[in-house]
Amino acid sequence: MTKNNSGWQDIPGEITAPRGYVASAIHAGIKPGSTRKDLALLFSLNPARAAGLFTTNRVVAAPVRLCQHHLSESRGRIQAVLVNSGNANACTGRAGFAAAQQTAKSIAKVLGITSTSVLVASTGVIGQPLPLDRIQIALPPLKGLLSFEGGREFSEAILTTDTQPKVSVAQTRIGKQRVTIAGAAKGAGMIHPKMATMLAFLTTDASISIPLLRASLKTAVDVSFNRATVDGDTSTNDSVILLANGAAGSQEISKRGKPFEHFQAGLTQVCTSLAQMIARDGEGASKFITISVEGARTTAQAEMVARAVANSPLVKTAMAGADANWGRIICAAGYSGAPIDPDKVDIDLCGVRVCRRGQPVAFDEARTKQLLSGSEILIELCLHQGNRDARMWTCDLTEGYIRINAAYRT
Amino acid sequence: MTKNNSGWQDIPGEITAPRGYVASAIHAGIKPGSTRKDLALLFSLNPARAAGLFTTNRVVAAPVRLCQHHLSESRGRIQAVLVNSGNANACTGRAGFAAAQQTAKSIAKVLGITSTSVLVASTGVIGQPLPLDRIQIALPPLKGLLSFEGGREFSEAILTTDTQPKVSVAQTRIGKQRVTIAGAAKGAGMIHPKMATMLAFLTTDASISIPLLRASLKTAVDVSFNRATVDGDTSTNDSVILLANGAAGSQEISKRGKPFEHFQAGLTQVCTSLAQMIARDGEGASKFITISVEGARTTAQAEMVARAVANSPLVKTAMAGADANWGRIICAAGYSGAPIDPDKVDIDLCGVRVCRRGQPVAFDEARTKQLLSGSEILIELCLHQGNRDARMWTCDLTEGYIRINAAYRT
Repeated sequence: MTKNNSGWQDIPGEITAPRGYVASAIHAGIKPGSTRKDLALLFSLNPARAAGLFTTNRVVAAPVRLCQHHLSESRGRIQAVLVNSGNANACTGRAGFAAAQQTAKSIAKVLGITSTSVLVASTGVIGQPLPLDRIQIALPPLKGLLSFEGGREFSEAILTTDTQPKVSVAQTRIGKQRVTIAGAAKGAGMIHPKMATMLAFLTTDASISIPLLRASLKTAVDVSFNRATVDGDTSTNDSVILLANGAAGSQEISKRGKPFEHFQAGLTQVCTSLAQMIARDGEGASKFITISVEGARTTAQAEMVARAVANSPLVKTAMAGADANWGRIICAAGYSGAPIDPDKVDIDLCGVRVCRRGQPVAFDEARTKQLLSGSEILIELCLHQGNRDARMWTCDLTEGYIRINAAYRT
Repeated sequence: MTKNNSGWQDIPGEITAPRGYVASAIHAGIKPGSTRKDLALLFSLNPARAAGLFTTNRVVAAPVRLCQHHLSESRGRIQAVLVNSGNANACTGRAGFAAAQQTAKSIAKVLGITSTSVLVASTGVIGQPLPLDRIQIALPPLKGLLSFEGGREFSEAILTTDTQPKVSVAQTRIGKQRVTIAGAAKGAGMIHPKMATMLAFLTTDASISIPLLRASLKTAVDVSFNRATVDGDTSTNDSVILLANGAAGSQEISKRGKPFEHFQAGLTQVCTSLAQMIARDGEGASKFITISVEGARTTAQAEMVARAVANSPLVKTAMAGADANWGRIICAAGYSGAPIDPDKVDIDLCGVRVCRRGQPVAFDEARTKQLLSGSEILIELCLHQGNRDARMWTCDLTEGYIRINAAYRT
């Protein structure tokens, strides 16, 4: 439990930590041969206000299109989120969209709500028909399993190649009321700055207007999920969904100002925790890498440099090998598209200055190797061009990544 | 020996195949611990006309800056090219530039030519001072070894993690004269569409004006080296240098028209062969992959799609695993930036249709797996939006890539 100056305290818990949310998960047998739980349900006891951000890929999976449709139709009033792993329901054409619609309709019927107040999310293999029958059979028992303790199972059932669930909960007081924001995410491979292949579900019992809910989600995602990268690929399914059901009884946030900023800080905190967990759990990752760029002329330029370094396979393999190969880092900065001046760049690896003003400096190779052999790596670049900064989180690139991805579908 | 309709015949041979060129190589001990030849010299018996294309990275290695300077100072009259492997002489500051200058000056003196008629190229580790003493001691014996048969040794000494030399020679007749174009290249990792980390040296005994020489090089590089990618990283040192010494005695090409187009065809042919060899020899590669995009509205859009597919780690690992995971291919096309319509895309893998109009089609999985287990993979996308096309060449991404790059510097 840590309390930072945002006034939000990180607490243990699940996506059901905010008041008024229940969840469940079940094994529906969506991916042939798998025995794990692969269908998860999140339910708000009263209709929540909702905001969503979705993939920027031109190839948009059916569930994403359905979410956009339902958020619009329901005017942002959502009560249930149904998630399956094992099948992405992408590149499945009209039949795939009909299948997504049918699952929403069916779970709405089981729950006794309107189908447009249901959002759906899918993750897994592309181009395979969704096994609709198996899902439909599983829906009544899935409803029966809904509980305030179901958050853990929810967070487990949404995973694919992730090695562990990703959950973050933060709590604060707004007036006299305790207000909570929680999130559960799914990541691993294919995580990209442009918020790709990742599912994240966020709940809060705060009360906030829909325009501000949307604005806060965009702001939070820009500096959290959009700053995490595993391999630079973007997916057809990525979705971040935020529900606010007002069950805490706190005063509604309906305009910008201190209370909104306070809410924003909590949401950004939860999203940042989840984004870091995603980078940390990149496919085959053995190290968590933070790239911190300072002294840029603009934040956008700082981001470009951080992203290029974070996405460089050569940097990521060097880190896997605990190799202080800063030449690859400055090289990535050089092709980032940002107008850096190579002769001004300082680079520190885990606090050891290895490059000063674009040139080598003598450093203790043995000690640096030891630092780089740890599981937490900090790469710092100072561009000496201005006072803007940006951070990215990524992981190293290992033989494990190749093993996982060479055999994923078959 | 194959003759295609360009009128140029691929023939065996080396970079010294065109008349009037000699080459040599020697072990100077540039990289501590290595015993291989690491210093190579190419010499034209008469001053040649020269054109060069260099890295687009903001971090530009000293030898590249010196080349640009000498090409300008000499007005494109170059007689010698000195190349070292084992050290990139990049991020080495003023001392690095002075070292590059000094090597050019020293070899010019040994050869009895002016130093501005010398080009230099370096490849290897970044941020380490060039061992100038070792290079200077090696220059007189390097000159002594110059011979018409030295091309093979030249092509071997310029390599780094390449598994084999990359050489291509094409011959034709211009009027009554036999004219030859030859090239030797160095590639392996870090090859990027924007012509990065690759050294390529091209020689011809044709006679051609400098403006046309430059134009022809740009055209050839755009559809050859710029279409080869291994890992998307770009380097600080990449250089393509073309020398034309006129020793064949053929008529000078001084304006656009048939003879120029004929020369262009040969140059493009040699560059394309070398680019394919580079992709084929990507670090850790087990398969050569051609991505062919058809039916695009513009060539630029076709290129964007081909490049995104070629650079996707998920596509490249799927190919390593002989997995017909076309979902990753359409997904990469979707985030390429090109305005594709996913519902129109057809995908064929090694001639097997796996996706029709964005949706799965039944195909023989066992046979396709067998085809994808081969060492030559063809990925074809038809966008059905227009009639433009583009090709990219790459290789699969294997555990070998990680092994090579995690331990390169140390």
